Parts: sequence; C-alpha cells; structure tokens
Amino acid sequence: MTELSQAHAFWQRPVRQRSLAELMTAWQRGDFSPAQSTRALVERIRNHPDRDTIFLDPGLERLEHATMADPEPLASGIEGVPISLKDLFDVRGEITRAGSRVLDDQPVSAHDAPAVTRLRRAGALAFGRTNMTEFAFSGLGLNPHYGTPPNPFDAARIPGGSTSGGAASVALGLAAATLGSDTGGSLRVPAAFCGLTGFKPSQESVPREGAWPLSTSLDCVGPIAPTVECCARLWAALSEQRLPDLDASPRPLRLALPQGALFEELDDEVRALFDRACAQLEAQGCQLERLPIEAIEETVAINARGGLVVPEAAALHHERLATMSERFDPIVAERLGDGVAITAHDYLERLWPRETLQQRFQREMVGFDGVLLPTTPLLPPERAPLERDRSLFMETNRRALRHTNVFNYLDACALSLPFQPHDRSLPLGLMVARPRGEDARILQTAAVLEHLLINERGR
Amino acid sequence: MTELSQAHAFWQRPVRQRSLAELMTAWQRGDFSPAQSTRALVERIRNHPDRDTIFLDPGLERLEHATMADPEPLASGIEGVPISLKDLFDVRGEITRAGSRVLDDQPVSAHDAPAVTRLRRAGALAFGRTNMTEFAFSGLGLNPHYGTPPNPFDAARIPGGSTSGGAASVALGLAAATLGSDTGGSLRVPAAFCGLTGFKPSQESVPREGAWPLSTSLDCVGPIAPTVECCARLWAALSEQRLPDLDASPRPLRLALPQGALFEELDDEVRALFDRACAQLEAQGCQLERLPIEAIEETVAINARGGLVVPEAAALHHERLATMSERFDPIVAERLGDGVAITAHDYLERLWPRETLQQRFQREMVGFDGVLLPTTPLLPPERAPLERDRSLFMETNRRALRHTNVFNYLDACALSLPFQPHDRSLPLGLMVARPRGEDARILQTAAVLEHLLINERGR
Repeated sequence: MTELSQAHAFWQRPVRQRSLAELMTAWQRGDFSPAQSTRALVERIRNHPDRDTIFLDPGLERLEHATMADPEPLASGIEGVPISLKDLFDVRGEITRAGSRVLDDQPVSAHDAPAVTRLRRAGALAFGRTNMTEFAFSGLGLNPHYGTPPNPFDAARIPGGSTSGGAASVALGLAAATLGSDTGGSLRVPAAFCGLTGFKPSQESVPREGAWPLSTSLDCVGPIAPTVECCARLWAALSEQRLPDLDASPRPLRLALPQGALFEELDDEVRALFDRACAQLEAQGCQLERLPIEAIEETVAINARGGLVVPEAAALHHERLATMSERFDPIVAERLGDGVAITAHDYLERLWPRETLQQRFQREMVGFDGVLLPTTPLLPPERAPLERDRSLFMETNRRALRHTNVFNYLDACALSLPFQPHDRSLPLGLMVARPRGEDARILQTAAVLEHLLINERGR
Repeated sequence: MTELSQAHAFWQRPVRQRSLAELMTAWQRGDFSPAQSTRALVERIRNHPDRDTIFLDPGLERLEHATMADPEPLASGIEGVPISLKDLFDVRGEITRAGSRVLDDQPVSAHDAPAVTRLRRAGALAFGRTNMTEFAFSGLGLNPHYGTPPNPFDAARIPGGSTSGGAASVALGLAAATLGSDTGGSLRVPAAFCGLTGFKPSQESVPREGAWPLSTSLDCVGPIAPTVECCARLWAALSEQRLPDLDASPRPLRLALPQGALFEELDDEVRALFDRACAQLEAQGCQLERLPIEAIEETVAINARGGLVVPEAAALHHERLATMSERFDPIVAERLGDGVAITAHDYLERLWPRETLQQRFQREMVGFDGVLLPTTPLLPPERAPLERDRSLFMETNRRALRHTNVFNYLDACALSLPFQPHDRSLPLGLMVARPRGEDARILQTAAVLEHLLINERGR
C-alpha cells in the first residue's frame, strides 16, 4: 500500500480511530506525511457524493496550497490538522453568509475571526465553509437553500444542527474536526445525532468576535471532534489555555441525574439506551444520584416561556426581515416574526434571573463531578416528515434543544459524548455539564466517562 | 455664645461653609463637639417647617442615640458626620418604600444596604429617610403622596429629583451630606437645582444591593454634598477606595464642550450663565474646545428613542401596576404603562450599542480632562404649573434629564458643580464627566474646576 493510499484509508476509518492523536501517530510512524493526509482529504472531499450539502464551499484550493511545514507533534497537537469551519465564521476574503441567502450582498471579510486565527496560529489547517441551519436558528440542521447534510448512520435522517455540515464533515471523514457555535445546542445536538463529541465551552473562554451572532447572551464557539481528547486540544488552542491533564487514571464519578422536567419527554429508545449507559457506569463504581436540581428546573420553566434566543435574534434580524423576508428560510422568518412581538418586560423577566440561577447551579454542583443526562430526548429523526409538516418541525426542534439549551442559559460548560452499544444502531448523546468557568474540569470528567463507557464495550 | 448655639449657627451657614472639612475644623477647634452638632441638628430638623416634605421619616431617635465616640478626624473624614439617606435604601428594621405607597405592605429590611453599612463603618451617622420621586422615576422631584420639598432658593420652585429630599436636606442645613442614587440624573439634577455638588460614580464603584432598583443597567449610588472634597470623602468610604489626592495645585484644564444636540435646547439664562463660567475658566488659562463628541451624539439619539429606563422600570413594576395601579403616582403609572408596550427588539437595539459607545467615549476623551456642559438646559422651574399640566411635566422632565442621562448610558463618572455668581440668583449646575472607572480623576478635575470658579468670585 502506498503512503497516499494509507492516508486515504485513514480517512475511511471509523470516527473514533480518526482522532487527532491517531493522526499524529500515523505521521510519526511514517504511515503517511501531513501533506499526504491533506492530499487524500482533498481528493476525498472532491469526490464525495454529499460534498455540496456538507460544504457550501469546501475551500479546497486553500487546503491544497496550505504550507505543509513539518508539524511538531504534541506542541498544540493540532499542527497540520484539517479543521472545517462553520459558515458563520469570518474568513479573510470570504463572505460570511451564516447558511442564508440574506447576506449574499455583504462585503467579504477583512479579517479572520479570532477563533479561526487561534486555530491557524496553533498550526491547524482551517478550511472550507460548512453548511448550517440559516443563522444557526434551529437544532435540526435543515437548510432549504443549500440542502441538508445526511446523518452518517442513515441518510434519510437529519444530522442535527445548527452545526450540521460541520458534524457531517467529521463523521464522514471529510475533516479531522470542525469549528462551530452553540447557542441552544448547536454543537451538542449534531454531535449527539452524528455519534461525535461536541463541546460547548463557557461563553467567555473562546472569543466570539467575527462569528455571526444569533443571541449575544448565549452564543458560544467550540469544537466537534472524534474524542474528548480532540476537543480538549482544540479548546486549549481556542481559549489559549493550557491543555487539561487528561491522563489521570479513571476513577468512579459522582454524577447528578437531574430529575424533573428534563427526564419527562424521553423517547423509549433514549430511555433504554440511557439506562443501559447508567448501568455500565454504575457497574464500574460510579455513583449516579437521581435528584432535582433547582437551577435546572427553573431554567426549563424560563425556556418554556420562550427563553432569550428568539427576542435577541429578532432584534438582530428584524430590519432584514422587514425588507427581504422572501430571502429567508420560511421557518426562520416565521420564528423571527414571532420574536418581533415579544415585549421588553417579557424579555427582561427571562433574563434577570440568570445570574442568580448560575450561582445556584454552582452551589448545587458542590460534591458532584457534573450532571449527566441524554443530550436530546430523541434519536435522530427522519428528514422528509420534518420538511413536509411545519408543526412537526417546530415540535421536534423544541424537543431537540430542550436539554441542551438549559446549559446555555446557565452558561455551563457541557459536553456531549456518543453512546452506541451496536455500531450500526443510532447513537445516543450523553451530556455532562458543570458550572461556568470549569471547562478544564468538565473535559477531565468527560475523559473519564468516555473511558468507562468504551471499556465496557471492549474496544 | 454657648457651644450648642455655635453648633446651631454652623447648620445655618451658607452651604459651602458647612463642608465636612469645616465641621471637622469646628470640632478640632473646640467650637462645639460632635455630640453638640448632632443635638443642634436634631433640634433644627424637629422644628423645620419643611421637615415633612424633606423627610418621610427623619429618624431622629436613631440620631439622638447615635454613639458619639470621639471621632478621629482625617481617618475617613466622615466620622460623626450626619448623612441623610434616600428612602430607597434598605435600613435594618425599616420598610423601603422608595417614595411610593405601593410598597407599604413590604416587610421591614433585615439588613442595611451595603452602601449604608460602608458609611456607618467609616463612622458616619447615617439617618432618616429622605423624600424622592416615586421609585426615582423622574428628575423633577414632585411627589403627590408625600408632597414636594422646596427649592432652597425659591420655595415656589422645584428641588429637582429624584433625590429631592436629600438635596433639600443638605441645602437647608438638615444634614451634612446625603446618600442618593442616579439612574438618569437623580443626583446631579437636584444638586444643580439646589446649588450643591452631586457625584454620579461609575456604576461598579459603589455597591447597589439593597437600593430599590429603577433600571438595573443604569442605577448608580452616590453622594450630594456641599463641596467636591466632601463628595470625594464620601465616595472613598462608599467605594472603599483611597481618597483621591485633591491637593494638587490648580492648573489650567483642557475641557471638551460637546457641540451638537446637547447645546441645542439651552434656556437663555442657562446659556448666559454657562458662557460666563466659560469666560472665567478661559481667563484663568483653561482650554475649552467646542467640538462634537460622537459617543455623546449617538447616545442622545438612543435616549431620544426612549432609552433603557422606561422598559426596565416597566419590567420591574408591571405586575404591581396590573394589580394596584391606583396606589401609584398617576404620572409614574402612565409612564410605566407606556413601558409595558415596548418590544424586546426596540429595547435591545437601544442596549447593544452601549459598550461600543462607552469605548468610543473613552477614545474621544484622550487628551481632555473631561467634557464640560450645563447639567441641565433649564434653571429650576416653578412647581405649580408642573402639577397642573401633565404635558408640561413630561416635557420639562425630558429636558431636565437630557444632559445627565447621556452619562448614565455611557456609565461615565460625572459631577455637577454649582455656579452662582450672585448669591440670591438661581444656581446653574456645571457638569464635568469622564469615562467609566475614572472616578478618582473626575474628582480631581472637579476640585480644580471648583477652585477656579470660586477664586474668580473672590470668596
């Protein structure tokens, strides 16, 4: 086998065997060079049948001409690694469309978004513009302008959103990892639906400038990648923090399972998979405590009254909506239209409890390694019915984001891990979360959890 | 003259001769003791004809029984100094009514507000509950429930608000200084109308907990007092910062006079007095540069679209308004009613430019000691017409707050100094302002300005 064909074979591996560490190992071992892995990736993307729904622009010229300096592995651990970019990030010389047709007339960006700059500075090959829900304004991943990327386990199902193309690019071996954003679950939901690891950091830890906003109170920037360690390396580069020490030997965790609103709407398959994961964790000595978490219950109630995203998105877009509504995704236009009518006092009554609840969550997490719950109360649903039936879409979208958006309001750091006892079944996302600012700690907790869940599978 | 009668005489002096420093000097010289000054003040308040419009409760028992430990002058410089409190501060064992009848059924406070605690800890005798506009929700000082305190120069005129009773208590020798709040001008407008010095610090420098909120984005806590040095001593105690060094020998200042919207609506007397003050400053070498300040112009435009106070106050009060509107000041109820209808996107479009404009103001102030302008575009108007004519009230209120509320939006630190070339004429407030966080520096600038203005008067 030539080195180039070995590089091709790398991108065809199951996703967990395509981690950043595996890529570095292949380079160090001389299986193929960084340049060869990039060349194989370019060829793979060029010929991939789903290229056009996953990438609005794959940016292959840039990737082909990227300087392939010999990486110094383990400095950042992302040197030479191809990382796809969500269409909402500013990249010098490109138009930021955020998955819409509304921004077609914008000028090209003068600068890279700081998050993109940080990836490049750490040596990554940031490339392409991945598909997304228009303006990141839903959690399913449907896009009527550019098409909807497939779910990697079943092309008739949705990939989740809004970082739909980014997740599909990683799941299908068209990028080593992806940079996305998360306002209500836009990293964690597609990670869950695509069998990947998605990390929503605390809002302040990764710069948000140059990322098209949806809800300035909630927007976060973060990665989707094959493993927790990949997310940790990307987060370290994005936040300019030290890489968290993930080598601590696995130990039993003490996790809170927040009883109440969030466990009420689980589909049967989700409940069965979640119970199975819990049984595996308990068998390995983890303490799982089922108890109500007040901060979560109150946040669910605030989000049920409408939350912050819709009024903030309406404030950002209502002028464009008034002058060019026909260019919008009709569902996005409808939801923004609802948002325009929300009163300031309704909005402020949703916003004001936030700090108190963030502090309460912090207090309630004392003694726990984090909360654990299904990332979504449903497994990835089929696309066609959602495209036909707007009320089904609205209801499914509400459910898809119902668990994740709690942790945006609390500005927690939260990670979705895949749990997939049979390789061909649909994966469940397991979400762990901790209070704001504890990003390094949640990565450490998630690494232990990943270890315990994979061990049990005997991989 | 007995010592007690000397203490009485002290409280009858013109206000500038009743500074905290003069009080300390009188104690040190043995003119009278701290206990005697307090006793004289208690007698004076008890017999004052305006007591009941100035104080909702003078709290004289507390003042009479205050422990009169020998003060150690010049530690904080406010030991033993009687400081009246606006009715919106929590004081242990008292109901916080915020000038309303709406909160009559509230329980008594369990704790002093932290600002009050800090004054007491620095040795001050914090006492009484001074009258205010209901919920601090206008700048004129009218209160239909408890009456309106008089303007000290003409009882037929208004004192300004919302810290109306506090300003009158200082102006009429019923307190050495007062603690108030400023959301759109509530310290600076009454200071201007009553010939006093009012200081709105940057929002974060003085704790706001335990002060009944009006607009959480804008509310500030600060003093009104006879001189800049008094304000500096009170601010040092309130912010737990070092007392700014005000002894620097006066030097010519370079001040920006923000041309544009703010100089458009000046009454003739205001323009004449302001020009006279400017001439005095220029005669002493100050450089006054008339130029547009973009951050100010844009803030005026945002405030003209309604600003932040009304929607935030409506969010705070709309439930009470729905259930007990008859207990509200009818004008406050009307304005809150208008606020309930404001949309979230209108509100957010007013809020979002704030940080950018704060940074722009900072940049535009480089090279200047501050901006200088009339605190209000009008001198204190007569009360009766405002009570009769609601549209006159609304228009006068808008004008009274038009200059000051710009600096709340910018979260500048701003100080109103009295300028009164003839003792019996109505005073003009001169406002100097600098960007957020430069509280010590604006106090130093104001001290120089005060010196230059008083020198010229030959006092």
